[in-house]
Amino acid sequence: MPAFVMVGRKVCTDPKFSLNDLTGSTGRLDVLLRCVNSAFMLSNDIRRNVEIYLVLLGEPDPPRAILFRGKELKYLNPDERSTAALVKNALMKDAGADWVNSTPGIFTARKDLAGILEELGGRRIIYLKEEGDKISGINLDESDVFVLGGKEDLSPVEEALLDGRPETRRVTLGPRSLHADHCITIALNLLDNSLKE
Amino acid sequence: MPAFVMVGRKVCTDPKFSLNDLTGSTGRLDVLLRCVNSAFMLSNDIRRNVEIYLVLLGEPDPPRAILFRGKELKYLNPDERSTAALVKNALMKDAGADWVNSTPGIFTARKDLAGILEELGGRRIIYLKEEGDKISGINLDESDVFVLGGKEDLSPVEEALLDGRPETRRVTLGPRSLHADHCITIALNLLDNSLKE
Repeated sequence: MPAFVMVGRKVCTDPKFSLNDLTGSTGRLDVLLRCVNSAFMLSNDIRRNVEIYLVLLGEPDPPRAILFRGKELKYLNPDERSTAALVKNALMKDAGADWVNSTPGIFTARKDLAGILEELGGRRIIYLKEEGDKISGINLDESDVFVLGGKEDLSPVEEALLDGRPETRRVTLGPRSLHADHCITIALNLLDNSLKE
Repeated sequence: MPAFVMVGRKVCTDPKFSLNDLTGSTGRLDVLLRCVNSAFMLSNDIRRNVEIYLVLLGEPDPPRAILFRGKELKYLNPDERSTAALVKNALMKDAGADWVNSTPGIFTARKDLAGILEELGGRRIIYLKEEGDKISGINLDESDVFVLGGKEDLSPVEEALLDGRPETRRVTLGPRSLHADHCITIALNLLDNSLKE
């Protein structure tokens, strides 16, 4: 199943954030919430074969990873606010090295990008960047792992981590610089169409 | 410039809606807000060559159209809540047959789908549907008008209006049934790539 990994460099790891100020006071959690929507939402259905890992690196308690697993996911709605409430629930859990379950299909652990990549093993990494190989020249596969920076790009250390793996490809979706959630929507549509044909 | 037309059959036309309950009490205004995000948001930029027409048909004062024109647009942010505040401002204006300006780049008028299509003249209509011609077989053009249903499909009367025009094509983006905002993201990416090549 395709996986997405999304880093939120400044996204708040305190569950006490306000649902009424998702853009101003959460270190741009709203960006990650829109990515969750893009990863799962179909008209009257959820993409059961998708997973998304959110990596929260903001204060006061980084790193914190939140995994949404389509197969088991419940209570997900398309709007930002209700997804933020699910993230809030996950942040309330004590997180350790192993995943703990929050609500159905949502898990949390104390992991950073390196930890997530280790867990995803030898799967091909598609690092979505403005500069890279055109996606039209790539045969996408259901086992691909798509990595995206959030509001800011990945750090040099994180980029080195990706580029140090033989299975990493830097790939661009087109001539415009896109938001991460839009990249996920486009990647999944390309995958839908490539598997259908 | 490409235009999108999005019908919200039950979307509330009263500016007094609550910003804290966009999903529950607005007749699904949140769906339209996400469409506005998809139509304009680039990473650190706005698509200046795009227009989107929202057609609100809910109580108490339908029909009400709100036009977002990229060329002049200001104060647009990617989150749902702040875009909802812009819609609220537009709904506070007295609307008549002609467009009146609300905030920069945002206009409102008393128009339904028929009125909008009349205004858009003889441009080709791409009616995005689950069943239709594959988009990969179509040469997209910057002057295309993309029409989408909202939470519900268009009414039989509205569909007859579209199908009665010789320049209408029913087009599908892929094998899955997608949300309207995701359709806009995919259509714009296809347009970006077709114009670039």
